[in-house]
Amino acid sequence: MAYQGKKLINDPNDVVTEFIEGMVETYPGLQYLDGFPGIKIVLRADVVGSTYDKVAVICGGGSGHEPAHSGFVGEGMLTAAVLGDVFASPHVDAILAGIRAVTGPMGCLLIVKNYTGDRLNFGLAAEQAKSEGYKVESVIVGDDCALPPRRGIAGRRGLAGTILVQKVAGAAAAAGLSLTQVLDEAKHASEMVGTMGVALSVCTLPGQVTSDRLGPGKMELGLGIHGEPGAAVTDLQPVDLVVSHVLKQILSKETNYIPISRGNNVVLMVNGLGGTPPMELMIASGKAVLQLQLEHGLAVDRVYTGSFLTSLDMAGFSISLMKADTEILQRLDAPTKAPYWPVGVNGNRPPAKIPVPVPQSGSTRNEEVLIRPQELNEQGYVLEAAIEAGAKEIINLKDKLNEWDGKVGDGDCGSTMFRGATAILEDMTQSYPLNDAAETINEIGASVRRVMGGTSGILYSILFKAAYAKLKESAVITPRQWADALEAAVNAVSKYGGAVAGYRTMLDALIPASNTLKESLDAGQDPLTAFLLSSEAVVSGAEATKNMSAQAGRSSYVSADILSSAPDPGAMAVAAWYRAAAIAVRDKLQN
Amino acid sequence: MAYQGKKLINDPNDVVTEFIEGMVETYPGLQYLDGFPGIKIVLRADVVGSTYDKVAVICGGGSGHEPAHSGFVGEGMLTAAVLGDVFASPHVDAILAGIRAVTGPMGCLLIVKNYTGDRLNFGLAAEQAKSEGYKVESVIVGDDCALPPRRGIAGRRGLAGTILVQKVAGAAAAAGLSLTQVLDEAKHASEMVGTMGVALSVCTLPGQVTSDRLGPGKMELGLGIHGEPGAAVTDLQPVDLVVSHVLKQILSKETNYIPISRGNNVVLMVNGLGGTPPMELMIASGKAVLQLQLEHGLAVDRVYTGSFLTSLDMAGFSISLMKADTEILQRLDAPTKAPYWPVGVNGNRPPAKIPVPVPQSGSTRNEEVLIRPQELNEQGYVLEAAIEAGAKEIINLKDKLNEWDGKVGDGDCGSTMFRGATAILEDMTQSYPLNDAAETINEIGASVRRVMGGTSGILYSILFKAAYAKLKESAVITPRQWADALEAAVNAVSKYGGAVAGYRTMLDALIPASNTLKESLDAGQDPLTAFLLSSEAVVSGAEATKNMSAQAGRSSYVSADILSSAPDPGAMAVAAWYRAAAIAVRDKLQN
Repeated sequence: MAYQGKKLINDPNDVVTEFIEGMVETYPGLQYLDGFPGIKIVLRADVVGSTYDKVAVICGGGSGHEPAHSGFVGEGMLTAAVLGDVFASPHVDAILAGIRAVTGPMGCLLIVKNYTGDRLNFGLAAEQAKSEGYKVESVIVGDDCALPPRRGIAGRRGLAGTILVQKVAGAAAAAGLSLTQVLDEAKHASEMVGTMGVALSVCTLPGQVTSDRLGPGKMELGLGIHGEPGAAVTDLQPVDLVVSHVLKQILSKETNYIPISRGNNVVLMVNGLGGTPPMELMIASGKAVLQLQLEHGLAVDRVYTGSFLTSLDMAGFSISLMKADTEILQRLDAPTKAPYWPVGVNGNRPPAKIPVPVPQSGSTRNEEVLIRPQELNEQGYVLEAAIEAGAKEIINLKDKLNEWDGKVGDGDCGSTMFRGATAILEDMTQSYPLNDAAETINEIGASVRRVMGGTSGILYSILFKAAYAKLKESAVITPRQWADALEAAVNAVSKYGGAVAGYRTMLDALIPASNTLKESLDAGQDPLTAFLLSSEAVVSGAEATKNMSAQAGRSSYVSADILSSAPDPGAMAVAAWYRAAAIAVRDKLQN
Repeated sequence: MAYQGKKLINDPNDVVTEFIEGMVETYPGLQYLDGFPGIKIVLRADVVGSTYDKVAVICGGGSGHEPAHSGFVGEGMLTAAVLGDVFASPHVDAILAGIRAVTGPMGCLLIVKNYTGDRLNFGLAAEQAKSEGYKVESVIVGDDCALPPRRGIAGRRGLAGTILVQKVAGAAAAAGLSLTQVLDEAKHASEMVGTMGVALSVCTLPGQVTSDRLGPGKMELGLGIHGEPGAAVTDLQPVDLVVSHVLKQILSKETNYIPISRGNNVVLMVNGLGGTPPMELMIASGKAVLQLQLEHGLAVDRVYTGSFLTSLDMAGFSISLMKADTEILQRLDAPTKAPYWPVGVNGNRPPAKIPVPVPQSGSTRNEEVLIRPQELNEQGYVLEAAIEAGAKEIINLKDKLNEWDGKVGDGDCGSTMFRGATAILEDMTQSYPLNDAAETINEIGASVRRVMGGTSGILYSILFKAAYAKLKESAVITPRQWADALEAAVNAVSKYGGAVAGYRTMLDALIPASNTLKESLDAGQDPLTAFLLSSEAVVSGAEATKNMSAQAGRSSYVSADILSSAPDPGAMAVAAWYRAAAIAVRDKLQN
């Protein structure tokens, strides 16, 4: 299958220069040389070559591997990056401009990935710069472990291990070392690192038709970073097996590419090729660490997981292993301002997991006290009557609620509320500590949460939990505290449910209830009268929803005509249990 | 078209827990709660809730948006992240466990993206935590600007602006502010930010079949981060136009989502949705900055470009704009250890581009001296004779070289060398400063580079440039310096070309030449004899390539049978010009 690649770009010929413009807008520590389109150099904004008193470290190569290499320019890593066009080596003159721009008396180190074009262009630029009086050394990185050894000099390509070499060299240079010393450390690092990649797709070149040579369910092992075919195509496997295969190949004693043996310490890099999400890269990292420890007997000192040296939007990753010694770890851990070098990777490794904390002692009720008291006190009696009346009213109203909801919603409001009311009546006889009003309210919430699903279930849970939290603040519960608890509960439902008055929800019953209760108490009404007045307000509020347009929930998709044929069932349910409870309280207190 | 998504995972049910395991392996500053699979919490390894003396900042939501939110856990940003399954809100009990794990006496702020499930689950957990005695506040972020206002409460989804709110809140908490103050700053930030996204593809859910509802050449505007359809589908456009449309929508005075007006300062975030390479994100950033400045009259204080809140592997990006004030900038710039918060974004913004440096004065020869001298000195005469003889021999050998190369390579070695030799003879009469041997060698390199293409052209350029750099080191050129220059040149060709002795390349002629020349001089031979001896070594060396297997270049793909029928043409060419030059020097000196 071939398809025209979709890309969010302008002219495909401008992708690299426009990329550089975006980079320097994002990172004020970076600049570029004013030599587009031929000269595409990103360099540290704080370095002037002629006076720079450290060894400059320069890397470069074809573009399409972002964030490499421009994303690794910054104090402590690269001094400049020389960018070619997509997958094409930069020209000699561009490389030379980069050397001239950042190289001072200490000289510069060129880090070159092992591709013929890069080697030759960087090589000629290096010789030209030397003839101009610059001190120039170069290290060529060929960390590929996918191909059998000695398949010609192109056999070992420069892959993501190059980024680790850049970090070692950059840190050595930042430490003030001489060019020879920086070169030695970079060479050493390049000899200690091996890499192998796997891919699930090829990359999309800007402005070109992409040929998907990989079929569905296939993956490619040992690929290059320019879309060149891999060493083998196999069926897609679980990532555990993929990681296992790749690690064995890198650590193979047959090819003996890197001198890592059981008992050694290593650094791991899992590098995304562009189109693979962090989730998959992290899964690979976690599995690789386990396998390195358990199957290969290696200690893993550092793990770098991310997309460092990509291949445009290719799906897949590469794994790099570097043999770690004290000096290499020190260089990798050294601070850098390079924007894409991962932070937070070094440091002490505490236990990976800790126990789930238990609730603060005393903060939740002991299971054993949760039993209906033998003797109810007066408040307990009243509370029992109110709960029973409210629940029974909901049970009676089941069909009517379903009917209203059938017009404006999904028709199950009555059934859902019925489940809650039934559970409350059942649980109350067993476990509600009715003499403790706060805990009883909390238990109502627990009953509701156990049997009522969906949004209404969780909104009622929030209602009761918020009321409970408020009631718990006082040792003795007065009518004023009941009013405060109702207000807190209503606010919580509004806040988390996202609705306010007039949205045609249960709040259009709850808000009038809360407001009237508070206002009546404030006006000096006796508590029972205040409760009864508020229960009238809740009914009027609920009935008024008939004329509201819906702003939340399923009803917001229903036309005004249909909406005016029924009140909001959620609001009507509130009105029903609230009004019934108020009347029950009145009857209880007046008997 | 529907296809089975390809992913590098194990069991699709384990992706989130295995992701967390990889995260904590990568970042030793992170830990997780031992409550898999129900409780998936990533938290700072250095915080113990009961004694934590700052406000804890907690965010969470469905997974599939990595690095959000676990990648933003770290000092100065989030204290914990609560992870749900892919695109599913975490459960109340999990959120509660997160609150308990990191909340101390100062309390905690929950940052919740505006989705019903998240609001309700975080809301109930908050109320439960409050009832346990914790101080808990929450801020709900709905920064989506894609949909018309008032399309119900779900109309404004929480998108990438959430990350900026996290940073503001995290920095405020790190500064030691109270819960109320942290809440106020987070709320303020959430009211100042607007976001809109575009996508080129939908995302691939682990273990599921993906339906590509977008056709080829189409893009979707105003999409969500869970694969939910966008507000409109249009033809794919240049990114300039896409950015322009998105910015206009965010800044629309009709919807008036964020209070940004001409003359204001803003912060820009270009957020990749997972499958879009950094190159494209940076292009969008660069263009967005330009348009914000020139078309909207805004000052852009900070630019964050990267993949922060993704949608698995979806291709596309979102743009967020936040109105900037001193306090917000201070919070965004504050240091954090969160691994995925971008570094190097703050700081002074120097000029974006600087001039391409000119070569160091005096380091390259003045064009005016490049003219054949009127009078040649003795060295000039000898040099002229040597160059002429070498070049003419190559011209004579053209067909023979092509014939050999036809057997083992691509058959153009003679023609390529012929072009170089012809150019040398031409240029020598015009511009070679023959009395200055070093500069003459440099000019030979320039002639060759001008007309010889391919690998051999650049290798010869390197050869002459390296010899020139070495010769330039001395004021007077002795035979010993010629030998040193040859050695340096041969080493450079080996280093950058990647071949060594025995690889069947031009080095199999050059190395014997260099070695014999040095050894003869060391042994006390007179310079002419040493040169002649080395010219015999070069011929034997070149002829011996017949029996070598190839390790580099095209010949490495040719069978041994065929290789043994011809010597390496590159080596034979070296032998030809070197031997001819030596004989010419002998003839000149002995006359």
